[in-house]
Amino acid sequence: MTGFYLAGEGPLHIPLMQGVSPELMEPNTRDDIKRWWEVIDRSTGAVVPPDAWRYEDGQVIIDNPIPYHEYTVSFLAYLIWDPVHMYNAIINNWEHEEHQITFDVRQPKTRAFSMKRLDKFLTENPHVDVVRFTTFFHQFTLVFDELKREKYVDWYGYSASASPYILEQFEREVGYPFRAEYIIDQGYYNNQYRLPSKEFSDFQAFQRREVAKLAREMVDITHRHGKEAMMFLGDHWIGTEPFMPEFEQIGLDAVVGSVGNGSTLRLISDIPHVKYTEGRFLPYFFPDTFYEGGDPVREAKENWVTARRAILRKPVDRIGYGGYLKLTLQFPDFLEYVKSVCDEFRLLYENVQGTTPYCFLKVAVLNAWGQMRAWGCHMVHHALYQKENYSYAGVIEALSGAPFDVHFISFEDIKNNPAILDDLDVIINVGDADTAHTGGIWWEDVEVAARIRQYIAQGGGFIGVGEPAGHQYQGRYLQLAGLMGVEKETGFTLNYDKYNWEEHKDHFILADAKEALNFGERKPGIYALPGAQVLCADNKEVQLAANECEKGRSVYISGLPYDFNNARLLHRALLWAARREDLLHTWFSSNPNVDVHAYVKNGKYCVVNNTYEPQETRVYRGDGSVMVLALQANEIKWYQI
Amino acid sequence: MTGFYLAGEGPLHIPLMQGVSPELMEPNTRDDIKRWWEVIDRSTGAVVPPDAWRYEDGQVIIDNPIPYHEYTVSFLAYLIWDPVHMYNAIINNWEHEEHQITFDVRQPKTRAFSMKRLDKFLTENPHVDVVRFTTFFHQFTLVFDELKREKYVDWYGYSASASPYILEQFEREVGYPFRAEYIIDQGYYNNQYRLPSKEFSDFQAFQRREVAKLAREMVDITHRHGKEAMMFLGDHWIGTEPFMPEFEQIGLDAVVGSVGNGSTLRLISDIPHVKYTEGRFLPYFFPDTFYEGGDPVREAKENWVTARRAILRKPVDRIGYGGYLKLTLQFPDFLEYVKSVCDEFRLLYENVQGTTPYCFLKVAVLNAWGQMRAWGCHMVHHALYQKENYSYAGVIEALSGAPFDVHFISFEDIKNNPAILDDLDVIINVGDADTAHTGGIWWEDVEVAARIRQYIAQGGGFIGVGEPAGHQYQGRYLQLAGLMGVEKETGFTLNYDKYNWEEHKDHFILADAKEALNFGERKPGIYALPGAQVLCADNKEVQLAANECEKGRSVYISGLPYDFNNARLLHRALLWAARREDLLHTWFSSNPNVDVHAYVKNGKYCVVNNTYEPQETRVYRGDGSVMVLALQANEIKWYQI
Repeated sequence: MTGFYLAGEGPLHIPLMQGVSPELMEPNTRDDIKRWWEVIDRSTGAVVPPDAWRYEDGQVIIDNPIPYHEYTVSFLAYLIWDPVHMYNAIINNWEHEEHQITFDVRQPKTRAFSMKRLDKFLTENPHVDVVRFTTFFHQFTLVFDELKREKYVDWYGYSASASPYILEQFEREVGYPFRAEYIIDQGYYNNQYRLPSKEFSDFQAFQRREVAKLAREMVDITHRHGKEAMMFLGDHWIGTEPFMPEFEQIGLDAVVGSVGNGSTLRLISDIPHVKYTEGRFLPYFFPDTFYEGGDPVREAKENWVTARRAILRKPVDRIGYGGYLKLTLQFPDFLEYVKSVCDEFRLLYENVQGTTPYCFLKVAVLNAWGQMRAWGCHMVHHALYQKENYSYAGVIEALSGAPFDVHFISFEDIKNNPAILDDLDVIINVGDADTAHTGGIWWEDVEVAARIRQYIAQGGGFIGVGEPAGHQYQGRYLQLAGLMGVEKETGFTLNYDKYNWEEHKDHFILADAKEALNFGERKPGIYALPGAQVLCADNKEVQLAANECEKGRSVYISGLPYDFNNARLLHRALLWAARREDLLHTWFSSNPNVDVHAYVKNGKYCVVNNTYEPQETRVYRGDGSVMVLALQANEIKWYQI
Repeated sequence: MTGFYLAGEGPLHIPLMQGVSPELMEPNTRDDIKRWWEVIDRSTGAVVPPDAWRYEDGQVIIDNPIPYHEYTVSFLAYLIWDPVHMYNAIINNWEHEEHQITFDVRQPKTRAFSMKRLDKFLTENPHVDVVRFTTFFHQFTLVFDELKREKYVDWYGYSASASPYILEQFEREVGYPFRAEYIIDQGYYNNQYRLPSKEFSDFQAFQRREVAKLAREMVDITHRHGKEAMMFLGDHWIGTEPFMPEFEQIGLDAVVGSVGNGSTLRLISDIPHVKYTEGRFLPYFFPDTFYEGGDPVREAKENWVTARRAILRKPVDRIGYGGYLKLTLQFPDFLEYVKSVCDEFRLLYENVQGTTPYCFLKVAVLNAWGQMRAWGCHMVHHALYQKENYSYAGVIEALSGAPFDVHFISFEDIKNNPAILDDLDVIINVGDADTAHTGGIWWEDVEVAARIRQYIAQGGGFIGVGEPAGHQYQGRYLQLAGLMGVEKETGFTLNYDKYNWEEHKDHFILADAKEALNFGERKPGIYALPGAQVLCADNKEVQLAANECEKGRSVYISGLPYDFNNARLLHRALLWAARREDLLHTWFSSNPNVDVHAYVKNGKYCVVNNTYEPQETRVYRGDGSVMVLALQANEIKWYQI
């Protein structure tokens, strides 16, 4: 979509490519522009009739726009430079590099060619035993501006997966005409903060089916040659959606992906229906780390220790690194460290293998995307930090290494099957109001909202972070205010006096909180209703509160950036919300810097120091017995149960 | 309205008076409760049919509620203790005081009695020459809880002005049935953050007409006795609305009100259609200030100097104090100070009288209430500080003493008469998104929104503070983002890279900003679009930005608590937005702590030191000539032009 253009009294000219690199894309004028493009009056949301605009020299011209309305043009374009190749060329200053373009394997001729090429390659390269596909077939959204700076990136974006060929097929399958707006979404492109529209969900489902079918062909060819088929979770992965049912149909042997932290580790290791998963750890063997005076060991340690928490919950089956191997030769201490990591991983894998670690509770993160964005909710571009969401992503990161059975469910899941909540111990809803993460207009769906209230009232636990259930409707901003015991001041309740500010510092949830609590970006204006227990308020704004509501319990947290103390706070909040404080001293370390994981079926448990300093702790075993323990920096110790 | 009550599997009991002092009010069960009360399913917004609930022993019982829906009851009640009398009794610990109740003068018998009583009083008290009414006839909303703490207060609230007698008359006049919800408004009671509904506006207009009619009778009686009628702007003033047309019909001679700051001074002094206005200054002569060791002079000085700025723009005609006179006798320095204030006021009044001070520009504050909440927008309870809105009220306070011709207009004013914008130099829109102050759904009214865009594009100035034009719609959160050059990050645009962060510290608007800027509570997540000039950004959040848009100019400010530097910043922003930087060195003080006001018609101008310390400044006269000047603390100096 172009930017917004304001009409004056005369004709309005909208240059399609303003703000976009002309080396990256080119408007597709070959297909019927009056069918595929949309000119929209954004002051009303109305589509401008096709005969009221024309296209000339890179511009759409509206001869008689309504003065002082704003207009946008949604248009189809060709990617004339593969965005990943363009990115590499920019970053590495490649001059005069021929621009690679993405094959559109969905087109019949390209498809036939690609299958044949794969077959030929496999025939000619009998020494290859694993084919790593990178990937099937659509790049995540990545756009550069005229200065070749990144303009837009969405690791989950589907914008680069459309062509008239595909869209016509989509129309035939769903039985209604395609509109550009289904993908354009007012310029928000159905990014994961947006509640996905029905049509966009249809489009994603269609793409998943088609990608799975086509990828299956390639996997079959690979298998016919007696080789393994592995998928790289990145670059052109759009449509594969490893956590959705179509993925199984692809028949892959393995998935490999880059590990940035605990969440991205689980993004790989939790993938079902493959024989094995592999994590590619950091640092990448590139001159930006491996230069004279560089410290690749530090980076490797950080990456390993950060991800290890998650590995101990659900291990990948293989670990690896990537880049130019020869660079590491100048860093013998790095090679030594990696050797120690490999040994540590081998022991870990042997002890953990084939069993589910001890889980205290069954916990579900509830949002509008559910399983499709499992472990990735709040991500914009893989593990990239965002000031706007680290306070929310921190919850997911904490969960990635925490002793809970974690699920991701959507509001639609509840709608389709209210019983999905029956065996949950705690629901977590985390994010800003009126985003997909907290649900927005879903709270006006009376069946879903009542089912969630019922779940809590009948004894369920609920943890809300940020602006949980945030959607202005019928006298509430936080739709679960009555159950959570907190509400947000938007001005509408400024006339009401607020008296509940006393802090209950002796609460179970705070028992390990010795340092100042860190709520990250916080949310302004949260206040407690009568009856709720404020655990932390700051400048007359509630940061942490607990509430008993009917038989259930609710915890409100304003934000929870990931650190060991916050992970502990969440651990305690989960137990409290589920009324299972009695479980605390089970497979538990008194020191929040140290974790305990038990693999009861295998008769093993470990104690692991997540910090770069030595730690002392009291370890509570499964039977409640206690052991005092000292651990070296980063150390992991294994024991028989 | 009661609180929200969650239905379980069985009948739901809703105690009407929970959270409300039983000494304050009592449910009205004498009038048909099935007609006047409303039980609402707040999970759907639907009214529960009257035959589906019953009332028993102070509770509404819904025998078959929908499980896990939340319900409220809106009910009529009698005020059995006048809230102001109750307040005084609580504050002053009056025990065994008989509870005064409010007369409902709108009832025919009470009306006849009251008129007769007034007439009798005037006959029996020939020495009285002014009758101060306190007031006509309805108390602003003031509710106490079971612990007699203030529970709810709205100085603009109409909730205490309804009775079946009044409501039946309302129904006959407007021609549609009354619903409790028109006043209840989901429990928000149409407070001034809410966009007033049509029905509530109808109700207010009806009350204004009726109050004016009835008050007129009392004023006529007063006049027949040869006495003046004065109204107190407080306590029972609801329905008089001095800035609305019906007010003139009352025929009052004068209005008196309490002065808390510049805004509340203008709230009085700007009232039209009276012979004179009077401000009652602080401190009140009460033992809380006038005790041994107290410092009433300090309070008096602060109050006077704060309000004087506004008096110099639009003076009240009289000043006064209130309380127990005898208390002041122990404070001779206070009496001396008040004498000096009176002398200062007399000179000021003589010099200012009958003329409009020099105004640079015509400026309008635009919101959903317009003229009705002139000078009072953002107020919850008169001049009371609110953490949530001091950053917005600061703009109004700055304007109350600034050399601009200030108007208050509503979106409906624009809708009814688009030409209202023709002679405006700058529009100011200040507040949080989706409140009455910034307009909310009015931005979906395409005529109004396009008219405002046209106004700016054709050369108008716009100043947006907080979340101006904030309402999520068609790809924008700030609906004027394209013209203001700033947008708010709500997550929906997190995928877009933002590059415009360079600060333009040499901008005209910042030329007097020597100290750190103070934006108050700020608003998170504002970023600049390409082309806008960021004047101040902090932690990648824009606090101040300027933008040229077509022929117009726009300034964004995240918040502007009132202080002298911010008043100067607003002064410069207004001139810049209107493209009238050339006017800067006219009736201008180089030192922002000092103001210059010119009364050209009277041939006078003054220079006034707003601080409690001596100040030096360069004064620019109307012809641009300069005078260097030193002023004592608080000093005001008068000159001939």
